[in-house]
Amino acid sequence: MTHPDPNAIKAAIATQRGMAEAFFARLAERSRAAPGITRDTYGEGENWGHRVLSEHGERADLHVWRDAAANTYVTLRGRETSRPFVLMGSHLDSVPNGGNFDGAAGVVAGLVTIAALRELGIRPRCDVTTMGIRAEESVWFEVSYIGSRSALGTLPEGALEAKRIDTGRSLAAHIAACGGDPDALREGRRQLDAAGIRAFIEVHIEQAPSLLEAGCPLAICTGIPGNFRYPNARIVGRHDHVGTPRRFRRDAAMAAASFADTLDRIWAELDAAGTSLAMTFGRFHTNAGVHGMTTVPGEFHFSLDVRSSDPALLARLDEQVSGIIRAIETERKVTFELGERASAAVGKVDPDITGAMTKAAERLGIRSMPLGSPASHDAAAFAAAGVPTAMLFVRNEHGSHNPKEHMEIDDFLDACAVLLHWVAQNAV
Amino acid sequence: MTHPDPNAIKAAIATQRGMAEAFFARLAERSRAAPGITRDTYGEGENWGHRVLSEHGERADLHVWRDAAANTYVTLRGRETSRPFVLMGSHLDSVPNGGNFDGAAGVVAGLVTIAALRELGIRPRCDVTTMGIRAEESVWFEVSYIGSRSALGTLPEGALEAKRIDTGRSLAAHIAACGGDPDALREGRRQLDAAGIRAFIEVHIEQAPSLLEAGCPLAICTGIPGNFRYPNARIVGRHDHVGTPRRFRRDAAMAAASFADTLDRIWAELDAAGTSLAMTFGRFHTNAGVHGMTTVPGEFHFSLDVRSSDPALLARLDEQVSGIIRAIETERKVTFELGERASAAVGKVDPDITGAMTKAAERLGIRSMPLGSPASHDAAAFAAAGVPTAMLFVRNEHGSHNPKEHMEIDDFLDACAVLLHWVAQNAV
Repeated sequence: MTHPDPNAIKAAIATQRGMAEAFFARLAERSRAAPGITRDTYGEGENWGHRVLSEHGERADLHVWRDAAANTYVTLRGRETSRPFVLMGSHLDSVPNGGNFDGAAGVVAGLVTIAALRELGIRPRCDVTTMGIRAEESVWFEVSYIGSRSALGTLPEGALEAKRIDTGRSLAAHIAACGGDPDALREGRRQLDAAGIRAFIEVHIEQAPSLLEAGCPLAICTGIPGNFRYPNARIVGRHDHVGTPRRFRRDAAMAAASFADTLDRIWAELDAAGTSLAMTFGRFHTNAGVHGMTTVPGEFHFSLDVRSSDPALLARLDEQVSGIIRAIETERKVTFELGERASAAVGKVDPDITGAMTKAAERLGIRSMPLGSPASHDAAAFAAAGVPTAMLFVRNEHGSHNPKEHMEIDDFLDACAVLLHWVAQNAV
Repeated sequence: MTHPDPNAIKAAIATQRGMAEAFFARLAERSRAAPGITRDTYGEGENWGHRVLSEHGERADLHVWRDAAANTYVTLRGRETSRPFVLMGSHLDSVPNGGNFDGAAGVVAGLVTIAALRELGIRPRCDVTTMGIRAEESVWFEVSYIGSRSALGTLPEGALEAKRIDTGRSLAAHIAACGGDPDALREGRRQLDAAGIRAFIEVHIEQAPSLLEAGCPLAICTGIPGNFRYPNARIVGRHDHVGTPRRFRRDAAMAAASFADTLDRIWAELDAAGTSLAMTFGRFHTNAGVHGMTTVPGEFHFSLDVRSSDPALLARLDEQVSGIIRAIETERKVTFELGERASAAVGKVDPDITGAMTKAAERLGIRSMPLGSPASHDAAAFAAAGVPTAMLFVRNEHGSHNPKEHMEIDDFLDACAVLLHWVAQNAV
């Protein structure tokens, strides 16, 4: 293993600034929404991202290929293509009215790294690939890590039948419409051999302002949380006149408020004790078809996402949720219908890679800090499949999944430099 | 004052059973929705109710007239038409997907009473009128007592500019489209002289199963609650990624849950102490345009209705609401925008009329009980204008403002008998 020259690394990255900026601008061109950016999963917005990536790869004379899930790969061929290869990348879809960097930054970081390797005159020993991953944002199909798990052959049973929340069409139909082959996926044929991947490294904007708070451009991820989810839960009570006395009510909205507030107080206590945890009721609503100012709500809908890097805590909380629900059902004469339960395992990062990256940042004179990821990422799917995995987080001022997400290109290039340092050490 | 013969009263009412049943059936004919009944305020559904009422009045050779608010009146002329007249009736609109009796029962009770007076051969001294009132259900325009207050010249400033929640058209435009004269209302011209009304008496289904619980067909109302309302309140926080750590969140939905749960605990305490009060968040929801399972809600909408027969309690609670909001705003870094505040005064019933009705029920052998109305009613607008007012509640099994409301025709005819007894005593 050689130690690349830090100054050469930084100079090679700096020359890619224009390319990175142009790529981000082109991505935004046809995915602007009002407000922000929408790149819908297996839809026009995401397709545009994959087209921009393919065209870039072809213009740069790189090997461009697609798999049965319509993930796009851009490869710099190594000297020994049979060796386990280095995989970089992230997802190209977004939430509705999200930002331009969530996901895309990891794809561009891979392209910047490949271009900088060439700039340094390095022809790597193994292939070095950037992957544009499909369907990471589970808001569309309410299934996690669709693109990466399709590639790895670990997509859960029945996922291809999931319906996109807005179109009502199945995942299989959407994949086919985007040029993929859902039948190949249905047979469980994996598109990537986990044992053939030297490492998967994902650059991603931070989803919170922890780095901003710490005055640090870069974090090296210490782990990816697991979760359990109830994407489509419902509370059934009874619609009543607004004047109905308390003892007769079966108010589904008040049951929901009590449920959410109880969980939130549990979280507040755990949070004060420093426990890694997040709980979110992303959808939380009376039924717009029937609710009204003068009607006691007889129906309430919610989604619940609970995430932590501690699997035992997740199991304990899931049990607590059941107990809280039973108490509220009795007290308020309502019924909770939780619907399907989804979950994702905790994603472990590779200590050798993160150790090397920490040292690389030091050598490059870039401030970094360790940070547990609060969010889910495709990296967790690769880790679960046994691929050595790492993540780098880039400072971001306004949170993500909203149009105000913001990333300074300098911070982004710092992440690229650390990534390039590791690739130059390990792929040559 | 004469004491009518109880047996003659009951016999005269019993002969109206078929007419009452046919009227309810005809009303339902063109206001069926799925599920239940929709008679939209100043819309097709309500218009149908007024047409059925007018046609009935004309066929029965009664005097039928309309006012500038398009309220419909059906009058049995008295011997001295200049005397203060007896007014009965209720509203002909409904909430969306409500039931057939909420409102309409009071109109039919008036028609039954008029027909029974004739059956008894009574030509009253004063006019006896049944009023089909417009726009009582504030779910449509979010203004209370539109029809009755228009008639009495007490419609609040600006109400004619209120927009119907579904059509977006103004109240003035809707009134004009239904054959009314919004300009006359704008000039504040009252359609009824409160001093010329001997009494306003409203029969209504009970909105709760208190009578069912007590095994009693009929209640004599002891008072109508006042209220304060925030029809269109909003909480503004920030949309964030589902992984955002707690300390960075500005979660509008959790702020709403905490607010609602805090108010509900206050209510639970007051309720346990026997205080008359109801609090309802009829609409309580994240923004369907942007919410999603993996986004922390940055926006939340709700309506709040707080009602009590104790004006001092209402004032104290409104202050408490402000204090609770300030605390939540600080703790959760969100902003409450309460929007317009509406209110209605507590409605007092006339003790002479209710006393006479209590005795009438006894003479007729009909079980009745005193009951504070939990719901708002047009009767409150008449009481506020100085008209001697009373209400009779009919037993109802499934609450109201829902398709399952249920009224036994026997119970309804018991209410009509008590009403007729009073009219026969006081209008002759």
